[in-house]
Amino acid sequence: MKFLPAKLERKLHRLKKHSRSPLKRKLDVMHENARNKVFQQSCDAYKDHKKSEYECRKRTTKMAGGSRETFLSDGSFHQSVGRVLLVAEFFAMMPVKGVTGKHPGDLSFSWRNVRTGFSLVFIASSLANFGLSLFKVLNNPISFNSVKPIIFRGSVLLVLIVALRLAQQWPNLMMYWHEVEQGLPQYPSQLAKCQMGHTIRMVMLVGMMLSFAEHLLSMISAINYASYCNSTADPIKNYFLRTNDEIFYVTSYSTTLAMWGKFQNVYSTFIWNYMDVFVMIVSIGLAAKFRQLNNDLKNFKGMHMAPSYWSERRIQYRNICILCDRMDDAISLITMVSFSNNLYFICVQLLRSLNTMPSVAHAVYFYFSLTFLIGRTLAVSLYSASVHDESRVTLRYLRCVPKDSWCPEVKRFSEEIISDEVALSGMKFFHLTRKLVLSVAGTIVTYELVLIQFHEDNGLWDCNQSYYS
Amino acid sequence: MKFLPAKLERKLHRLKKHSRSPLKRKLDVMHENARNKVFQQSCDAYKDHKKSEYECRKRTTKMAGGSRETFLSDGSFHQSVGRVLLVAEFFAMMPVKGVTGKHPGDLSFSWRNVRTGFSLVFIASSLANFGLSLFKVLNNPISFNSVKPIIFRGSVLLVLIVALRLAQQWPNLMMYWHEVEQGLPQYPSQLAKCQMGHTIRMVMLVGMMLSFAEHLLSMISAINYASYCNSTADPIKNYFLRTNDEIFYVTSYSTTLAMWGKFQNVYSTFIWNYMDVFVMIVSIGLAAKFRQLNNDLKNFKGMHMAPSYWSERRIQYRNICILCDRMDDAISLITMVSFSNNLYFICVQLLRSLNTMPSVAHAVYFYFSLTFLIGRTLAVSLYSASVHDESRVTLRYLRCVPKDSWCPEVKRFSEEIISDEVALSGMKFFHLTRKLVLSVAGTIVTYELVLIQFHEDNGLWDCNQSYYS
Amino acid sequence: MKFLPAKLERKLHRLKKHSRSPLKRKLDVMHENARNKVFQQSCDAYKDHKKSEYECRKRTTKMAGGSRETFLSDGSFHQSVGRVLLVAEFFAMMPVKGVTGKHPGDLSFSWRNVRTGFSLVFIASSLANFGLSLFKVLNNPISFNSVKPIIFRGSVLLVLIVALRLAQQWPNLMMYWHEVEQGLPQYPSQLAKCQMGHTIRMVMLVGMMLSFAEHLLSMISAINYASYCNSTADPIKNYFLRTNDEIFYVTSYSTTLAMWGKFQNVYSTFIWNYMDVFVMIVSIGLAAKFRQLNNDLKNFKGMHMAPSYWSERRIQYRNICILCDRMDDAISLITMVSFSNNLYFICVQLLRSLNTMPSVAHAVYFYFSLTFLIGRTLAVSLYSASVHDESRVTLRYLRCVPKDSWCPEVKRFSEEIISDEVALSGMKFFHLTRKLVLSVAGTIVTYELVLIQFHEDNGLWDCNQSYYS
Amino acid sequence: MKFLPAKLERKLHRLKKHSRSPLKRKLDVMHENARNKVFQQSCDAYKDHKKSEYECRKRTTKMAGGSRETFLSDGSFHQSVGRVLLVAEFFAMMPVKGVTGKHPGDLSFSWRNVRTGFSLVFIASSLANFGLSLFKVLNNPISFNSVKPIIFRGSVLLVLIVALRLAQQWPNLMMYWHEVEQGLPQYPSQLAKCQMGHTIRMVMLVGMMLSFAEHLLSMISAINYASYCNSTADPIKNYFLRTNDEIFYVTSYSTTLAMWGKFQNVYSTFIWNYMDVFVMIVSIGLAAKFRQLNNDLKNFKGMHMAPSYWSERRIQYRNICILCDRMDDAISLITMVSFSNNLYFICVQLLRSLNTMPSVAHAVYFYFSLTFLIGRTLAVSLYSASVHDESRVTLRYLRCVPKDSWCPEVKRFSEEIISDEVALSGMKFFHLTRKLVLSVAGTIVTYELVLIQFHEDNGLWDCNQSYYS
Repeated sequence: MKFLPAKLERKLHRLKKHSRSPLKRKLDVMHENARNKVFQQSCDAYKDHKKSEYECRKRTTKMAGGSRETFLSDGSFHQSVGRVLLVAEFFAMMPVKGVTGKHPGDLSFSWRNVRTGFSLVFIASSLANFGLSLFKVLNNPISFNSVKPIIFRGSVLLVLIVALRLAQQWPNLMMYWHEVEQGLPQYPSQLAKCQMGHTIRMVMLVGMMLSFAEHLLSMISAINYASYCNSTADPIKNYFLRTNDEIFYVTSYSTTLAMWGKFQNVYSTFIWNYMDVFVMIVSIGLAAKFRQLNNDLKNFKGMHMAPSYWSERRIQYRNICILCDRMDDAISLITMVSFSNNLYFICVQLLRSLNTMPSVAHAVYFYFSLTFLIGRTLAVSLYSASVHDESRVTLRYLRCVPKDSWCPEVKRFSEEIISDEVALSGMKFFHLTRKLVLSVAGTIVTYELVLIQFHEDNGLWDCNQSYYS
Repeated sequence: MKFLPAKLERKLHRLKKHSRSPLKRKLDVMHENARNKVFQQSCDAYKDHKKSEYECRKRTTKMAGGSRETFLSDGSFHQSVGRVLLVAEFFAMMPVKGVTGKHPGDLSFSWRNVRTGFSLVFIASSLANFGLSLFKVLNNPISFNSVKPIIFRGSVLLVLIVALRLAQQWPNLMMYWHEVEQGLPQYPSQLAKCQMGHTIRMVMLVGMMLSFAEHLLSMISAINYASYCNSTADPIKNYFLRTNDEIFYVTSYSTTLAMWGKFQNVYSTFIWNYMDVFVMIVSIGLAAKFRQLNNDLKNFKGMHMAPSYWSERRIQYRNICILCDRMDDAISLITMVSFSNNLYFICVQLLRSLNTMPSVAHAVYFYFSLTFLIGRTLAVSLYSASVHDESRVTLRYLRCVPKDSWCPEVKRFSEEIISDEVALSGMKFFHLTRKLVLSVAGTIVTYELVLIQFHEDNGLWDCNQSYYS
Repeated sequence: MKFLPAKLERKLHRLKKHSRSPLKRKLDVMHENARNKVFQQSCDAYKDHKKSEYECRKRTTKMAGGSRETFLSDGSFHQSVGRVLLVAEFFAMMPVKGVTGKHPGDLSFSWRNVRTGFSLVFIASSLANFGLSLFKVLNNPISFNSVKPIIFRGSVLLVLIVALRLAQQWPNLMMYWHEVEQGLPQYPSQLAKCQMGHTIRMVMLVGMMLSFAEHLLSMISAINYASYCNSTADPIKNYFLRTNDEIFYVTSYSTTLAMWGKFQNVYSTFIWNYMDVFVMIVSIGLAAKFRQLNNDLKNFKGMHMAPSYWSERRIQYRNICILCDRMDDAISLITMVSFSNNLYFICVQLLRSLNTMPSVAHAVYFYFSLTFLIGRTLAVSLYSASVHDESRVTLRYLRCVPKDSWCPEVKRFSEEIISDEVALSGMKFFHLTRKLVLSVAGTIVTYELVLIQFHEDNGLWDCNQSYYS
Repeated sequence: MKFLPAKLERKLHRLKKHSRSPLKRKLDVMHENARNKVFQQSCDAYKDHKKSEYECRKRTTKMAGGSRETFLSDGSFHQSVGRVLLVAEFFAMMPVKGVTGKHPGDLSFSWRNVRTGFSLVFIASSLANFGLSLFKVLNNPISFNSVKPIIFRGSVLLVLIVALRLAQQWPNLMMYWHEVEQGLPQYPSQLAKCQMGHTIRMVMLVGMMLSFAEHLLSMISAINYASYCNSTADPIKNYFLRTNDEIFYVTSYSTTLAMWGKFQNVYSTFIWNYMDVFVMIVSIGLAAKFRQLNNDLKNFKGMHMAPSYWSERRIQYRNICILCDRMDDAISLITMVSFSNNLYFICVQLLRSLNTMPSVAHAVYFYFSLTFLIGRTLAVSLYSASVHDESRVTLRYLRCVPKDSWCPEVKRFSEEIISDEVALSGMKFFHLTRKLVLSVAGTIVTYELVLIQFHEDNGLWDCNQSYYS
């Protein structure tokens, strides 16, 4: 009777991949015990942590109470971008209803809404303005510099149309964000919750402030310039003749048209800046979600976690990837317009930088504007590259998974991270990563070098040139 | 007696990779049951779906009946390209017999066929024309612009020869397509079946229409131009002296030669356009096969499928990859000629764009032609990049395979997709992906920038220049 | 009694990764049987094949008999390159003893050998010639074109020194080749054995013939040119004053020096061509070894092979990779010199191509030389890229391994192929792949475009320019 | 009774992945035995090796004894860089206390330390100097060449500030190095221990010697130049007016200011060279750690090692990777400044190289300086690329793990090496690998080609140009 099991035992042993010597086996057992203890401890620690966290959260919510609750962000992207979108709607972009609501379910889009109407009217107005610009440009010799107004107005128009289409998808997108956010690990503290919203608001504020400052400076410089090349006695008329030359190229001067032109300019400038800010904001949101996941993984770095833990994290990671993909599909045209615009305007400004400035006001405006442009481009690039960077950070924690916790789920997780390229893109033609920033910078520097090498004063500041933007 | 199995049980337990605590084990059992239920349901759903699909198909076929059957596509690539190839044969390309037959088995190539004869005669005629062009070009100073006729006629000649060689392989290739198509999951509906054929026919139609329009405009502009630089009193003679200058550079004017030259021009233009259309059509076909597979995977996304399901799909995917490879081997020379041609002609046209146009007819023709050229290049690039894009989409569905269905087969499948680069190529020197489009666009823009920067009017429109394409 | 096994059976069943329904199990059993049968058959087929192969080989060897044996190649790299190296030794390169021996064990290097002495003398002579060239160039204004002689002579000198160092390593390298070749699967036929040797000899022959033709043409054109710019009455003196201007820049004309200069020119030209041929030959050898392995895998494509089969193939593949690495370490400096030389000379020739030729003899020589240069560069690029291409082909056969033969060894094999980049390299700075060819071609075309755009006749053909390469 | 186990046996057999024929099984058993023997032998060899190693080490330490102990390096990075950092501190960089201590625990940073004070004073002084340079440059027309002084002084200033910040992190970084080094396999001999320290000291010595030689030559050439464009009668005054033109552009000549200017120049030149040397030293340190690990793997190449061996090595590799990451975060700004500086200065020097030199002293200085610059850039590039190269070498040993030792740990190890990109970086915008060197070289060559093509003497050597670097 004893014979049988012994035989079986031997056979069973040989099934184990590597037959081990008794000494090794003992060592393994010792390790196993030690590991189990550590695992138990980490499990207990996890439970305690979770418990205290939970209570902390309960307390926070209680403390917050009635009136304060409205101020407290729940850390969702929907709430964080609410006011940003409200400002955009004031400038005729993305006419979605309910952007400041508490729940993404309140979002809706309707063609009959007054915002949509306003947006459509502004698109029509922009189209007219674009047509006038196009007419003026085509009736003059074309150069790299002279097409600036049509590229400016054309891209604003394109972004407006894309934003309208995006507005229709926005409620669904936000619902998906909401779902993904529900599934993610909880924020460790109220501070962490507010962080994303805070960053988004700061980016919006700083972006808009600088854009406003630039517009003011541009006005001062234009007034200066207009008086310098004064075609009429009226300084205001001079100014408008200058900044809205595409209108008065066709028709004679009229105050109403001048006002309309001014209105168009202000709104277009806002939208031109806003598209960069918008790409930044979406990037911040997506990167924040990856960071939320990474923070949880960081807490359990090097610990012995059950396969189900990894499975859960993998699915959460996958969900953020899908979210990233959907957002990219929705905004990639805006990203593309934003990037090519920035590239083109930097090149044009660098071309101008080699010419002598007609006045000090011009020089100040010019260098401020160039710095702002380069800074904004860098900011967009780096913020959008951060999505990719954050998505790779996850791998760092997976690398520290101990030998005994290494299971097929962790393997699958790490392989998926390695092979996926999670990043915002310009219509899938290029992915926004740090390497892209380098190659873009390289291109600009090369262009500038060639410019310097073969420089002659191109007279870009003469009075007949289209001035504004 | 009870002792033994208990001991064995323990041993068997230790065979399981991770010894689990009883609580966990219970959870696992619960999960297992839940999963089994879901799996059973999905299996039933699958069966029901299949059944209804089958009946639907039966009905459709019945409804179609006698005469309608001929119109109903079975969704095969062979049937979809039948008429496209027939048109090509009319223009002396790819002389294969049986292209409109129902089964690829009817295809055959013979050197004695009248189509082959016609093709060979046309190749000889093209060769003569090419020789004349070469003679004229070599007897004049060479420049980037002046070699245009020999590049045009040379690539047409090359494509003709490649097409003849391709015609010999076509029956075998179509048989392989047929085999691969037989193995693929069924189309869900008759609509899905027709889609590929429809797209192919539309691409052919639009491509040929635009090419025809461009040729007409070119004729109008040439007549205009001929009368402007009138060397003789006869306008028709003027026109032919202009458009076939390579012939009348050697010999004096004769109506027969002029007719031959015209015939050559019309046919060459068709073939020059057709090579792009052909690359697009093959790309559409390959992308459609990947899409067919992806649609099936999409239906079962996130469900618990048996390993055999994945094994089957993997083999189908592999077959399409091999098909892709074989097609690429067969047509990659055409792809390369098509791409380099487009690149060269865009550069030449951009060089010309900086010169002042001699007349309005020229300007209209020129901008139409440039837009057509860029549009066609973009279309070829994007359609051929779609093969690569579709081949990567499969991965998205594999990412959603639930934990319990994750088996070695799925792993192997996903690893193969990650490591393979499935795409059409230009003789393996470059793969046709979206990144390529960007780098090509970047190259063209850089060239244009350098051109603008150092522009002087090169007098490309003077009367002594070779005019036609 | 029946209870126990049933229980065990259930437990054992649960060990199988996916519990399957009875219907599925039956299907599996059916499949299993079918597979076993196929496997048995393929095994038998394999044995039969091996047996017949063996007998065939025995017969071949017998048939060959005494005298024919010496002509029969055993397919080893050592035997294939024997005569090629002998020719090189005649031109003072790679002084290894025993290159035409039957076994690599006969190879040896000694500093006292007469070949080594000849090689050292020639290096000294080349150094003197290089010094004279350097002196002449430094005493004239430096330009992209004028440094041609020092780049030509400098790289020949560098290659000579590297070849001397390589000669010391050659016996060891050949022994390693021999070992790797011993481990590889047998050639299927005598024809396959001879193929590599045949290709190597053809490449050597064609390369040397063309190089000889080019040298003859260069002499004719130089004689022509010398008479055109005749400085003295003696045509032979004129010729030598022209082709060895670096010598007679320092000293006055003397026939001995002229003979020395001519000797140097002939030898340098040979070595300059030989370095390309050598890179090609090594590439052919390495690619042939990968092909030998691939052919074996192709024979068993899609069959059920034992893990030990895959393990064996993996180790053989690994050995070829290590061989590739060692060869690359040994010759990568030659590869780098060869590549940069070709790139530089193509650029210089293209620069010259824009100038008007002084005579028809020049034009013929120039275009022949340019075509030869571009053709040789392409040949080196494509042959060396073929090593990388062949190393990737292996993957294609691993993709077709059936589900049941998919074992950890196959997985490891395929992962190693995917992650390794097996290719010759230019000092690890660049790997020789098909993509490189494209980027090099792109660079040259861009350079040519810029040249054409800003072309002015640089007077590169005037009489005071150093003429000979 | 016999029935049961037989049945079980069959079942157990079917658990094995591939049922094998009896013949195969016997072969397997034979292999298994052979393997076990080899394994036992290699284990014994390992133990013996370890033992002898241990004794050898004990003896060495004993032999070393009291006084010699201080000279004997323990092979740690901290001890190796001690004197290098001491020199840096003398030049006001990285004011850390205890750099020459035996243990990294002795390191400390304090704002109140005299070194920190000196460093801060020098930063303030540099800032003043930078301001003066900026003032001079902005008051003159800007060109690629004229901004040289501000780029030189600006980057020195930036590096000084970064070094101050780095000084604060240095104690922690060194402690982490210490920990990683403790965990690594022991050095096989005392020689191996000293190697890294030796290389570091040699790089420092050679770098500083060459930099000193260059500064001397620059002084001689400046004195020469100053006397040539003598503005005053006093040669010393002339010299200082020339080399510190940014000071005397604002104020009139004074000996104290001249001394300050000279002091600034000497220190700035040192720091400008030191940043390259520093990047090299860190690279050498990191590469040495990878090499230490690789040497251990090399010793056991192809042997049967227990999974725990691989697990240990994997964790050690991971630790070096993390160390690499932390060092990169700390110094990547310095790396970036160093690289862009080198690139800019090479371009400027090449631009100057086309101009005729005013004197022989200039020519000598110029070519020495250019060679030194290119050599230093190459050295930095190759040393920093060696980190990446060494990190990939590990893979080579994993490829040779025998079939039976192939375990999940080895698999995980090799996959991690494949997917990680371990290298120093320039703020993550680019990784320092050999491919980067090629692309940088390509960029420089292209720039030089364009320069040569469109060269006109830019008069960069006239007397009004800012002279000193």
